[in-house]
Amino acid sequence: MALALELAAKGMYTTTPNPRVGCVIVRDGEVIGSGYTQPAGQAHAEIMAMRDAQERGHDVRGATAFVTLEPCNHHGRTPPCSDALVRAGLGRVVAAITDPNPLVAGEGMAKLAAAGIAVSSGVLAEQAYEMNIGFFSRMQRKRPWVRMKAAASLDGMTALHSGESQWITGPAARDDGHAWRARACAILTGIGTVKADDPQLNVRSVDTPRQPRRIVIDSKLEISLDARVLAGGGTWIVAAVSNPGKEAALAAAGHEVILLPNAAGKVDLPALMLELGRREINELHVEAGSKLNGSLVREGCVDELLLYLAPCLIGDAQGMFALAPIDRLDAKIALKFHEVRQVGEDLRILARFTPQQE
Amino acid sequence: MALALELAAKGMYTTTPNPRVGCVIVRDGEVIGSGYTQPAGQAHAEIMAMRDAQERGHDVRGATAFVTLEPCNHHGRTPPCSDALVRAGLGRVVAAITDPNPLVAGEGMAKLAAAGIAVSSGVLAEQAYEMNIGFFSRMQRKRPWVRMKAAASLDGMTALHSGESQWITGPAARDDGHAWRARACAILTGIGTVKADDPQLNVRSVDTPRQPRRIVIDSKLEISLDARVLAGGGTWIVAAVSNPGKEAALAAAGHEVILLPNAAGKVDLPALMLELGRREINELHVEAGSKLNGSLVREGCVDELLLYLAPCLIGDAQGMFALAPIDRLDAKIALKFHEVRQVGEDLRILARFTPQQE
Repeated sequence: MALALELAAKGMYTTTPNPRVGCVIVRDGEVIGSGYTQPAGQAHAEIMAMRDAQERGHDVRGATAFVTLEPCNHHGRTPPCSDALVRAGLGRVVAAITDPNPLVAGEGMAKLAAAGIAVSSGVLAEQAYEMNIGFFSRMQRKRPWVRMKAAASLDGMTALHSGESQWITGPAARDDGHAWRARACAILTGIGTVKADDPQLNVRSVDTPRQPRRIVIDSKLEISLDARVLAGGGTWIVAAVSNPGKEAALAAAGHEVILLPNAAGKVDLPALMLELGRREINELHVEAGSKLNGSLVREGCVDELLLYLAPCLIGDAQGMFALAPIDRLDAKIALKFHEVRQVGEDLRILARFTPQQE
Repeated sequence: MALALELAAKGMYTTTPNPRVGCVIVRDGEVIGSGYTQPAGQAHAEIMAMRDAQERGHDVRGATAFVTLEPCNHHGRTPPCSDALVRAGLGRVVAAITDPNPLVAGEGMAKLAAAGIAVSSGVLAEQAYEMNIGFFSRMQRKRPWVRMKAAASLDGMTALHSGESQWITGPAARDDGHAWRARACAILTGIGTVKADDPQLNVRSVDTPRQPRRIVIDSKLEISLDARVLAGGGTWIVAAVSNPGKEAALAAAGHEVILLPNAAGKVDLPALMLELGRREINELHVEAGSKLNGSLVREGCVDELLLYLAPCLIGDAQGMFALAPIDRLDAKIALKFHEVRQVGEDLRILARFTPQQE
């Protein structure tokens, strides 16, 4: 199963909106076939592994398949893997974890069992869950797993009052940040950051055949058509007010405007998360300024902080999150450290918001 | 030598102002005696180890002594250990590191060698240095190793605007903080913290037979005679202005006022560090508010941050260091991460200022 998880990781940048899945077929302790999920619409891990076994001249009848997620049992872009496994005559299927997709949810395993295949699951389940945390979130909560990236000094400052923020962290942390961008289905920022930094919001430091969708929160549709985040088309602009002329211009350039106002005339962020779930966004990577960061955190839209801390002090400057003062420490927003490691000279902290904040 | 370092650590809270030293005497691969430095004025590690060997019925003649610091060669509160080792007829002495004390500085080893004892050093030198980093600082730089403790939320906030700061971090971090207090020769705070929190500034969460010296920076001698930091006497109050009445009252209660004004009428902090070096303070533990923290950092008086980060966000509140804004990121104050670990639910970061800041 550990090998199957390694294979699954090969699809980290490409399978979206499908989960990353790996499959290893074993007979008499020997690996006779292996594979991982291809980009959406192409073969899933189980099919790839069976093809691999066939190409290597092995018969999979009676063999055991280790798969990092319960085989699918529904017709999506491809036919159900469960049927293929039954037809091929596998003897045993071990899944790391049950598929959270309500269209599957145990029925894949049930169909296999009904066909006389020995089934079990729960092997390395946590690792399998972590690998597809966004897919699980979308299936179970109807919204993406939202990971907010920030880079700050040890005293919590992310930019000078002048706006200068390049670079607080070192090159290793910046490259690492691009790997996190690459695995996300989409990258979200705000119009403030677009105006201040004019970011490209794409993946450059790591090789990937797929660029994540770019999303800009732009309540008043102020974005310039020359903004680099619009280069090449395909950006989603989320606004709170309609502006038919601007919308037409953006549409003509291949972008889409999503109107989602709340009662205060701002973008309804929780509603946006549900909309992004409907649009098959599993992992959403946020790189925004302190204002949008603060709003997303306050409105319970963030699941995880990806925080790079640089070993320096900056002094009076801009913080990471614009959050109003609280009266009592009891009112603090609680997280839990998930992982800490050094990346180059900097520290990378993954911290997750505790469920009350979701 | 690893065993000798473990023994040395037993003196962590007690040997000050002497270094923590451990000694293991070995013959034919068997430990025949061991010991560690006792409180100042009592026996050093080498003497304790030789006594231990004697009590256990062993003859140390020709044996090898592993000692975590070069044996002393001067008459301090006790006679030189080098003489004792020569008299006892040790065959070989291995030191982890050379004594930085200018009164020793290689001469201990030289005297042993002159007496025909085989000598060597440099075994686990880094661990031996870290264990006595304050002693090395005082000997080599004439001032203490200054460790500044702060506890903050992930967004770098240490207290609410109301002053509420109890508790951002959890009980494990607070206990851990007391262990760092216990190893320090002295604990320093500012009058702002005394007024706001009235701290005792003593060691409570860990067992120690010795309480560190308490020091308060109090430019205008505003401290109340009822302040808890004055309980029991022995506190040093560092002021910038003289106030004979207050000084007399403090002296009568067993405290000492140190006058160290700078040109701006504040306490001359770099001069204070040299004064504390003269007063045999090896490790100085700072727990102060953002104002004094900022001044100490800005004036290059801090060697190390001991930072507890709690997994929470607080929003607009008080930062850790009152440092004026900088114009360019180049002007940031650089540190280097030394060690990071999780303590309870919190993160403990040790970061050292890079030499330019010293």
